[in-house]
Amino acid sequence: MSASVRGTATTTLVVVALAYTVSSAAKVGRYEPDWTSLDARSLPAWYDQAKFGIFIHWGIYSVPAFGSEWFWMNWRGKKGAAYVNYMTKNYKPDFTYQDFGPQFTAEFFDPVQWASIIKDSGAKYVVLTTKHHEGYTMWPSKRAFGWNSVDVGPHRDLVGELSRAVRNLNSTRFGVYHSLYEWFNPLWVQDKQSNLTTRTFVTEKVLPELYELVNNYKPEVIWSDGEWEAPATYWDSLNFLAWLYNDSPVKDTIVVNDRWGTDTLCKHGGYLTCADRYQPGKIVGRKWENAMTIDKYSWGYRKNARALDVYTIQNLITQLVETVSFGGNLLLNISPTSDGMIPPLHEERLLQIGQWLSVNGESIYNSQPWSKCQNDTYNSYLWFTQGNNPAIIYSIFMQWPKENKLNSECLDKLNIESVIMLETQSKLNWKHRSKGGLTIKLEDRSRIKGNWGWALKITMKL
Amino acid sequence: MSASVRGTATTTLVVVALAYTVSSAAKVGRYEPDWTSLDARSLPAWYDQAKFGIFIHWGIYSVPAFGSEWFWMNWRGKKGAAYVNYMTKNYKPDFTYQDFGPQFTAEFFDPVQWASIIKDSGAKYVVLTTKHHEGYTMWPSKRAFGWNSVDVGPHRDLVGELSRAVRNLNSTRFGVYHSLYEWFNPLWVQDKQSNLTTRTFVTEKVLPELYELVNNYKPEVIWSDGEWEAPATYWDSLNFLAWLYNDSPVKDTIVVNDRWGTDTLCKHGGYLTCADRYQPGKIVGRKWENAMTIDKYSWGYRKNARALDVYTIQNLITQLVETVSFGGNLLLNISPTSDGMIPPLHEERLLQIGQWLSVNGESIYNSQPWSKCQNDTYNSYLWFTQGNNPAIIYSIFMQWPKENKLNSECLDKLNIESVIMLETQSKLNWKHRSKGGLTIKLEDRSRIKGNWGWALKITMKL
Amino acid sequence: MSASVRGTATTTLVVVALAYTVSSAAKVGRYEPDWTSLDARSLPAWYDQAKFGIFIHWGIYSVPAFGSEWFWMNWRGKKGAAYVNYMTKNYKPDFTYQDFGPQFTAEFFDPVQWASIIKDSGAKYVVLTTKHHEGYTMWPSKRAFGWNSVDVGPHRDLVGELSRAVRNLNSTRFGVYHSLYEWFNPLWVQDKQSNLTTRTFVTEKVLPELYELVNNYKPEVIWSDGEWEAPATYWDSLNFLAWLYNDSPVKDTIVVNDRWGTDTLCKHGGYLTCADRYQPGKIVGRKWENAMTIDKYSWGYRKNARALDVYTIQNLITQLVETVSFGGNLLLNISPTSDGMIPPLHEERLLQIGQWLSVNGESIYNSQPWSKCQNDTYNSYLWFTQGNNPAIIYSIFMQWPKENKLNSECLDKLNIESVIMLETQSKLNWKHRSKGGLTIKLEDRSRIKGNWGWALKITMKL
Amino acid sequence: MSASVRGTATTTLVVVALAYTVSSAAKVGRYEPDWTSLDARSLPAWYDQAKFGIFIHWGIYSVPAFGSEWFWMNWRGKKGAAYVNYMTKNYKPDFTYQDFGPQFTAEFFDPVQWASIIKDSGAKYVVLTTKHHEGYTMWPSKRAFGWNSVDVGPHRDLVGELSRAVRNLNSTRFGVYHSLYEWFNPLWVQDKQSNLTTRTFVTEKVLPELYELVNNYKPEVIWSDGEWEAPATYWDSLNFLAWLYNDSPVKDTIVVNDRWGTDTLCKHGGYLTCADRYQPGKIVGRKWENAMTIDKYSWGYRKNARALDVYTIQNLITQLVETVSFGGNLLLNISPTSDGMIPPLHEERLLQIGQWLSVNGESIYNSQPWSKCQNDTYNSYLWFTQGNNPAIIYSIFMQWPKENKLNSECLDKLNIESVIMLETQSKLNWKHRSKGGLTIKLEDRSRIKGNWGWALKITMKL
Repeated sequence: MSASVRGTATTTLVVVALAYTVSSAAKVGRYEPDWTSLDARSLPAWYDQAKFGIFIHWGIYSVPAFGSEWFWMNWRGKKGAAYVNYMTKNYKPDFTYQDFGPQFTAEFFDPVQWASIIKDSGAKYVVLTTKHHEGYTMWPSKRAFGWNSVDVGPHRDLVGELSRAVRNLNSTRFGVYHSLYEWFNPLWVQDKQSNLTTRTFVTEKVLPELYELVNNYKPEVIWSDGEWEAPATYWDSLNFLAWLYNDSPVKDTIVVNDRWGTDTLCKHGGYLTCADRYQPGKIVGRKWENAMTIDKYSWGYRKNARALDVYTIQNLITQLVETVSFGGNLLLNISPTSDGMIPPLHEERLLQIGQWLSVNGESIYNSQPWSKCQNDTYNSYLWFTQGNNPAIIYSIFMQWPKENKLNSECLDKLNIESVIMLETQSKLNWKHRSKGGLTIKLEDRSRIKGNWGWALKITMKL
Repeated sequence: MSASVRGTATTTLVVVALAYTVSSAAKVGRYEPDWTSLDARSLPAWYDQAKFGIFIHWGIYSVPAFGSEWFWMNWRGKKGAAYVNYMTKNYKPDFTYQDFGPQFTAEFFDPVQWASIIKDSGAKYVVLTTKHHEGYTMWPSKRAFGWNSVDVGPHRDLVGELSRAVRNLNSTRFGVYHSLYEWFNPLWVQDKQSNLTTRTFVTEKVLPELYELVNNYKPEVIWSDGEWEAPATYWDSLNFLAWLYNDSPVKDTIVVNDRWGTDTLCKHGGYLTCADRYQPGKIVGRKWENAMTIDKYSWGYRKNARALDVYTIQNLITQLVETVSFGGNLLLNISPTSDGMIPPLHEERLLQIGQWLSVNGESIYNSQPWSKCQNDTYNSYLWFTQGNNPAIIYSIFMQWPKENKLNSECLDKLNIESVIMLETQSKLNWKHRSKGGLTIKLEDRSRIKGNWGWALKITMKL
Repeated sequence: MSASVRGTATTTLVVVALAYTVSSAAKVGRYEPDWTSLDARSLPAWYDQAKFGIFIHWGIYSVPAFGSEWFWMNWRGKKGAAYVNYMTKNYKPDFTYQDFGPQFTAEFFDPVQWASIIKDSGAKYVVLTTKHHEGYTMWPSKRAFGWNSVDVGPHRDLVGELSRAVRNLNSTRFGVYHSLYEWFNPLWVQDKQSNLTTRTFVTEKVLPELYELVNNYKPEVIWSDGEWEAPATYWDSLNFLAWLYNDSPVKDTIVVNDRWGTDTLCKHGGYLTCADRYQPGKIVGRKWENAMTIDKYSWGYRKNARALDVYTIQNLITQLVETVSFGGNLLLNISPTSDGMIPPLHEERLLQIGQWLSVNGESIYNSQPWSKCQNDTYNSYLWFTQGNNPAIIYSIFMQWPKENKLNSECLDKLNIESVIMLETQSKLNWKHRSKGGLTIKLEDRSRIKGNWGWALKITMKL
Repeated sequence: MSASVRGTATTTLVVVALAYTVSSAAKVGRYEPDWTSLDARSLPAWYDQAKFGIFIHWGIYSVPAFGSEWFWMNWRGKKGAAYVNYMTKNYKPDFTYQDFGPQFTAEFFDPVQWASIIKDSGAKYVVLTTKHHEGYTMWPSKRAFGWNSVDVGPHRDLVGELSRAVRNLNSTRFGVYHSLYEWFNPLWVQDKQSNLTTRTFVTEKVLPELYELVNNYKPEVIWSDGEWEAPATYWDSLNFLAWLYNDSPVKDTIVVNDRWGTDTLCKHGGYLTCADRYQPGKIVGRKWENAMTIDKYSWGYRKNARALDVYTIQNLITQLVETVSFGGNLLLNISPTSDGMIPPLHEERLLQIGQWLSVNGESIYNSQPWSKCQNDTYNSYLWFTQGNNPAIIYSIFMQWPKENKLNSECLDKLNIESVIMLETQSKLNWKHRSKGGLTIKLEDRSRIKGNWGWALKITMKL
């Protein structure tokens, strides 16, 4: 995934009228390889219900683990001084990126351990980088002879092992990140040099691998990336998606994103990602996802990461709440080491989120945005979601109010039946204020264990 | 440092009557090489005032980083199954421990960065493993040709670099951990085989290196270890300490521990360590130190450490408070990687302690145990220290009491002038209870930021 | 090249009536992609005149350098005990063949040095393994991303460097060995599993690379190999050869061998190789080549080769003489190290051959078989060739005859004008013997320097 | 061994009157630690009888195998441009010499194979570098922890393995090369900095190791070296040699050379070496040895050695003959690889010498110089030795004379009983020439197989 922001994309957002989790009853027959038809497909419901997924960036870049997962490009492509110096200082001259391969040992990689951490985080799906822009495949691709995880490095089928572990242990859905382009693949370079008048790279590398991935591992998410230097016609995305929706073994459950060509980001495909760390700040007409990282500066592991480079648990839970309030999913990235370990500080954050969700998850999973308000006018730290049952509103506050009194403008004029604190299951008192707004009397703070946000369940008489 | 507990040692504690931080005014002339004379030396005052130090276990064991810093012994000596299997699975046959040497790159080691983290942690001294039981020296020892950090691995004088950085940036004191024995040094093995009738290892290796360390790096702590298989006479400890106290360049400031021979632990030398993670649970007659780890299972780095293997910040601050209340110092161990980084989760803990000390440090530094009480009878989470000014008592509570009311039995019957909350500097009200004890009315919990313990400063009218 | 003998092939030899070095005057128009047309092409004359070439087996197998260049197959395919044991004993578990890649350093590879040795050997062409059955390409192939000599190992274009050096320094012709199949390429494995009903491997890998090789490096020999598991139609050899002869940049000078499909060995294509170390023992109707090795047991370098594993200089010169007498070329293989050096004992043999050819080369280069005799009936160590001028016969004897008298039956009844010893340029006396045969009186052996065979130039009155 | 010539030493030669292989009958009692006494010891007879030994230079320098065994000094000490460039180009920055250690695998080292080659060479003793100036010991020295062949590299006791194999297979005597100084050993550097007023290096490192070597491996040669920067008193050589001759387990058979201090070369000790490749060109009063190499430029292996860098077999046999004629022994050096192989071209030379000695050895072994002549005045290629039986003279000619007639001035006036060609055992005719000198009529050259020198056995009537 690109570490750079491609933010202007959000301005081209096309609002589609359909509620995005409702299955299209009108659908008869097959999808056609055009955007009108493909975009009309409703997302399988599981995805919106999931709300929270884990992104995993793992590959050869986890070996140098310096700068970011764009190491190769930053070093050899852009010749960034920090990268060039790092290599000059620590490696023999003429060392190439491929020479890192044998050091990707994954010696501690235990897929059951990872599945267990993911489960404990409360995430409902996981997306693994099966092939990043470096071109190295994390499964024994027939088209990546000598540059895949069985031939070089771990000597294991990482995609296969993780997908099985995740599905066995959890009900977690398994998804694949897949980069269309490969920076230094000579076939891609050649197509580019021909101004994309040839498509050798696509027919001999990209498409065969995509079919291999889908047929062998039956993912439920395809998180496409690396699309931005060629149009969807070059990548043959329309035909691929039509096959995926019509005939693939995952046609009923598959979810894809919007990165299928220069002309698709934030516009066509499945859910919108628009930009890395996408956060629209409002409800948008289609399902979207906020893909963000625990490490502020990189998707891939960095050996020289510092404690303060990692988002605090308060930050992360706020991101989750805000994202869900506006109708998005949070796909939170972790960065395993080349040894196959999830860094303990990343693991701690996941366990903390899981601990928070085990108390407050009712306000997140299966919820939907509350059309009236997402964020309170009085208190910017106060957020809302609506339950499956429309009579229920969840109110999540990220700071504890002074004197234990929570004020809200958005909750004004509601016909409230009860207010319950999820952590303690206590019923709370409330009062409509004369000048407008509602005041809820919380329990004394000294009685509360949680520190990172608290959810109230407000039931209305409809 | 040994990962195994040698706890029976605590039963042999000899109480020495002298207050341990007061300089012995009676001292005239020189120390003699006998325990009566050496033990009579008062500890330089800085050590007791410091209260909190950082221990660093770093060496070749940071390369396999598996199990613990006892890797070599567990693998080749005890032939532990986990170790043997790990090596069989991941290394070529006949790989030796020394073969790990070139992989100890320390490529990110920035002594100024470390010094800065140590400063931010609030620690007042640091103790680095300059030579562990493996025998590898972290400085270019004249007696460890081919087995030191300049010849093999980092190609740098790690002791020199860190000592300079720490002293330049902070007023932090620099100390050296030094193991007397070396598991597999053939000279030691030979002396042992002769039932210690020969002392070649001591005269040719141990003593020359100790003198080198002291003369070159002028440490203010010698944290001796590895003493337990031979008496102090074998190690020539008495003469060494006499030189150290009489003639060495650090004779006025040097502090040593109690590990100088089979017959010295918890009995002779400087401050007592008695056992790893020593915590006597009462005031003892001599200065002592609780050396403990952030990683529950190892002093050295473990590549496969998990988040839950690390003590929580609540645990660690409680350890600090408890240790100081009973008159000890806390020496908290961190485990850098072979790349030269402090693991981010360790760094985070240090920063959190530093943050806590920046608010509550007045109750810790320069304090002394309160002879009346160390731990409250009513609330086991309530601890006490006394200020330099004996009219001041600090009361540190590790949980926030229900209804914001803190009850104490120990504070009963005191003639209190004021009670101040250190975090907010607010004056609090208090009330002597009729049935005995004192109740202090805290501020409302919702007004308090801290989460990991809070200190009150209680000034008495004397 | 296969280390195994595929000897039965020689029995299927098809004798073609054309003199094989005479350009086909009748040739009008273009070659068709059928064997009748392709086989009718005359070999460019340079090849037959050259007589002696150097074969170079160099690749990733030069790193383990154990057993032979079939290391990968013998180890992972056939699971040969010696190979499996070697790897078990000396490498970490799960080490793969590709992991050898970064150790192929070629750090001493100096193409000018090699060109100079080749020149000094007297060879007139050189054939380098540009891709062996392992699939690793010695040039930056667009179809071998991450498995070529620029990405992994030397980080240099070995084919490019050697071809330029050889052409600059010498008038030596440059040829490429190229394996059609690649043992473990998943595309090949897949085609095989489909009983060759698919041809993905050929269209996406083999043919693009062959065109790349020819267009980029303009070789004058293509030494095809690895053809034996699929027919020429699978490999598309007919179309490739038609292009090569009609339209390629080397159409006028290119020479190919006979390994283009299961059905071609010793039958179709250019010159015949029939089997490794092919030696028909008679004149055959088409140009042929004896590809043999200096190391008796391997084409690739062996780190544990012994002195007696190498053919003596007497053996090698005898092979050359015998081969040329029967109308063949000798392609003598050397086995460089992974460092890029020609082993000194191989170099010594080449220099010795060169030394011999500098004296006796007139009897070899540009010669042709003598139709009357190739090997004398009296003395099996006596061989013949005919000069370009048919009045000249060269007589080469590999042992020095007792009493300095050389007897020959084949030279009987010739009308001899002169007999000259090439080494000394002395005119010798001769005598037709009454009972038949000729006796030539050599100079005294004590006057002769050479030890490895001597050539006489016999001029006849025609 | 030093690659540089230290030739001026030969001028200080002190002629000692004693015949050097006759045991000193007068010897009663013990040797004293002074040169008068020590020099008076007669060499054990086996050494002079042996005539031909193999020197083996093998150590960590066999890993870079660049330049010579002085690699470390040339690179880091003298900063030779070729060495610095080689390292800069091929290794990571800050790579140290010790980092080569793990690459000294010796994976093919088979001591029985070596012993067999040595036996086949005809050599009667072998001298292995047990410790060169680099300080790395080829046995598990107690004083070289972490810098010996069991801890680092082969993980084997190379001295032990080779000594056992050589003694089991052959009657070959086993000797040890041992360097007194170690370029970069900090203890040596320190002693030197003190102008040798301290002797820590000798008492803690040199002497303990010498005793270990002798007591553990019972060598019959000590080839001392590296003596030239300090006098024998610094090295304590006199006491060591007195112990060696009086009390060591090898006191009856041990032979040493003359390198025991700045003041001893070519003067004191056992046999004289004077300079590397020492060749006095006359008979000198004491036993001497010509230590020379097969590789012209290095004692240690060079990965980039060329064929012409190796002496021809003619050169080597001439050296042997010349050396023996003047009363010396030839100690011919080979340079094994870090894999543990004797380079095939070195092996070939050894086998060729062995082949020659199997025919002509009678003229070499057990011979002594012929006092009358060593080299013929007529023919500089004609050499002489005398048999144990003084009635026998061996005449060895290195070129075959024209017309098969061998002329000699030195053989003039002898009362000859018979002349026999050793290769064929044929009796030859001879004739005293009128103008002085002898002419021997050889067999016809065409009947002789040998190419590298031929020996005649001349029996006289005494």
